[in-house]
Amino acid sequence: MKVVTSINELRKERSSLLEPVGLVPTMGFLHEGHLSLVGQALKQCASVVVSIFVNPAQFGPNEDLARYPRDMERDKALLEHQGVHVLWTPLPEQMYPPGYQTWVTVDEMTLPLEGTVRPGHFRGVTTVVAKIFNAVQPEKAFFGQKDAQQAAVIRRMTMDLNFPIEIVVCPTVREPDGLAKSSRNVYLHAEERKAAAVLYRSLSAAKEAFETGERDAKKLRRIMEDILAGEALAQPQYVSCADPLTLQELDYVKDNVLLSMAVYIGTTRLIDNILIQKEK
Amino acid sequence: MKVVTSINELRKERSSLLEPVGLVPTMGFLHEGHLSLVGQALKQCASVVVSIFVNPAQFGPNEDLARYPRDMERDKALLEHQGVHVLWTPLPEQMYPPGYQTWVTVDEMTLPLEGTVRPGHFRGVTTVVAKIFNAVQPEKAFFGQKDAQQAAVIRRMTMDLNFPIEIVVCPTVREPDGLAKSSRNVYLHAEERKAAAVLYRSLSAAKEAFETGERDAKKLRRIMEDILAGEALAQPQYVSCADPLTLQELDYVKDNVLLSMAVYIGTTRLIDNILIQKEK
Repeated sequence: MKVVTSINELRKERSSLLEPVGLVPTMGFLHEGHLSLVGQALKQCASVVVSIFVNPAQFGPNEDLARYPRDMERDKALLEHQGVHVLWTPLPEQMYPPGYQTWVTVDEMTLPLEGTVRPGHFRGVTTVVAKIFNAVQPEKAFFGQKDAQQAAVIRRMTMDLNFPIEIVVCPTVREPDGLAKSSRNVYLHAEERKAAAVLYRSLSAAKEAFETGERDAKKLRRIMEDILAGEALAQPQYVSCADPLTLQELDYVKDNVLLSMAVYIGTTRLIDNILIQKEK
Repeated sequence: MKVVTSINELRKERSSLLEPVGLVPTMGFLHEGHLSLVGQALKQCASVVVSIFVNPAQFGPNEDLARYPRDMERDKALLEHQGVHVLWTPLPEQMYPPGYQTWVTVDEMTLPLEGTVRPGHFRGVTTVVAKIFNAVQPEKAFFGQKDAQQAAVIRRMTMDLNFPIEIVVCPTVREPDGLAKSSRNVYLHAEERKAAAVLYRSLSAAKEAFETGERDAKKLRRIMEDILAGEALAQPQYVSCADPLTLQELDYVKDNVLLSMAVYIGTTRLIDNILIQKEK
């Protein structure tokens, strides 16, 4: 595995890679969720490039940029072992040098859900992903369903800006109790860790209600809210039952629905979702 | 010359072009300025793609989108004759389909000059150029110095978003009396056409003053303003003496300066500039 920092080094390595090239953009501190994306990329592509960049532009002023977990040596070892071809670890001052002033924004879809509570977050995400797309020029790029809105927004941006890239969204990887794998799970103390299973439990209950015929979005949200309310350590930020493409809240569910939520467990903010699609 | 409309057709043609590929993005109604860009592209690249798209997103609500001059048959003949390989003529509904919501913005540099009087203009320009870059994937893209701020903004965007594209800015082509070639010159009545030479005359006077030692930006602006004031049909919108990279107004000129102006001649808005650079 080649490890490169500058874009020039990256381009040099990229030019000798066998195509199609798959890209897995990450913020590092890799867990099984990331590794499953890498696995899919290795399966579908002749070469795989992974980027690790904790992107300052997608963190709000009161968010956890400084304390976001990092372990580059462990990440390198994991990716090397999995058979990744190129690891790109750009520095913030290379990505956003003095005078930097270009931003990619997606409008309506970034307003609800995460957008309501993390203003500017998606501008940071779409900008850095556009930069990484142009730097790596992959044929396919792999994202996790765990960040459902992010995946939908990136699909939209890719289509709108004519990037010649296929976006592949891979299933969320979960702990045995259902907790979605996330780099932020390390913030949880033992008791909180146990409580955190409530997100998937409530999502699953709503899914089950859907499968047994419930189509009233208000009732589906209520099912999730009631289960969250039963967990003392959980403070829901939003609980949503939305159209998977537009991310607008639904009154009545037809075939497709994105059940999603953001919940504080203690001081740690977790998100999770279940996507229900007819004949996915 | 292949003429294509959809992105899929374009990509198919693109894949069989010899590289490097040069791109000349235009809004059509081609004049010698465009043709000089095409000439440069043909000289520097193995294949040349020209796009013709009157981009609704870069026109303000009170601007001349509807009456912007068009002559596709003549444009095709000119490009065919010059030896262009692919002409791409996308339709507005292909470029901005229902649900479209992604925008590329460049911040500080788009605020002065054209930005003060055409809010939203550069967002339209940078967005469509990013889309065209991704659709064509050229090695080089050619722009005219006539739109000096546009050229500077596109250079910035290309660098900031890591597009692997070299931006080539070609000299303004002028009529014998100095009027910069522009598709909008057809709007000018005979008397206005004569008056329009005042833009280049005033820019040239400021340049001459610079060359004979004048370094006070206020005085350089004054020289241009005085000459414009002597032309009854000319109504200046702005007269600028700015840093060529940041586009901020200067007090004192060192080595590099962009002299530029926007002037109404009757109801027609014209822009022009002279770029002075040390050892360009």
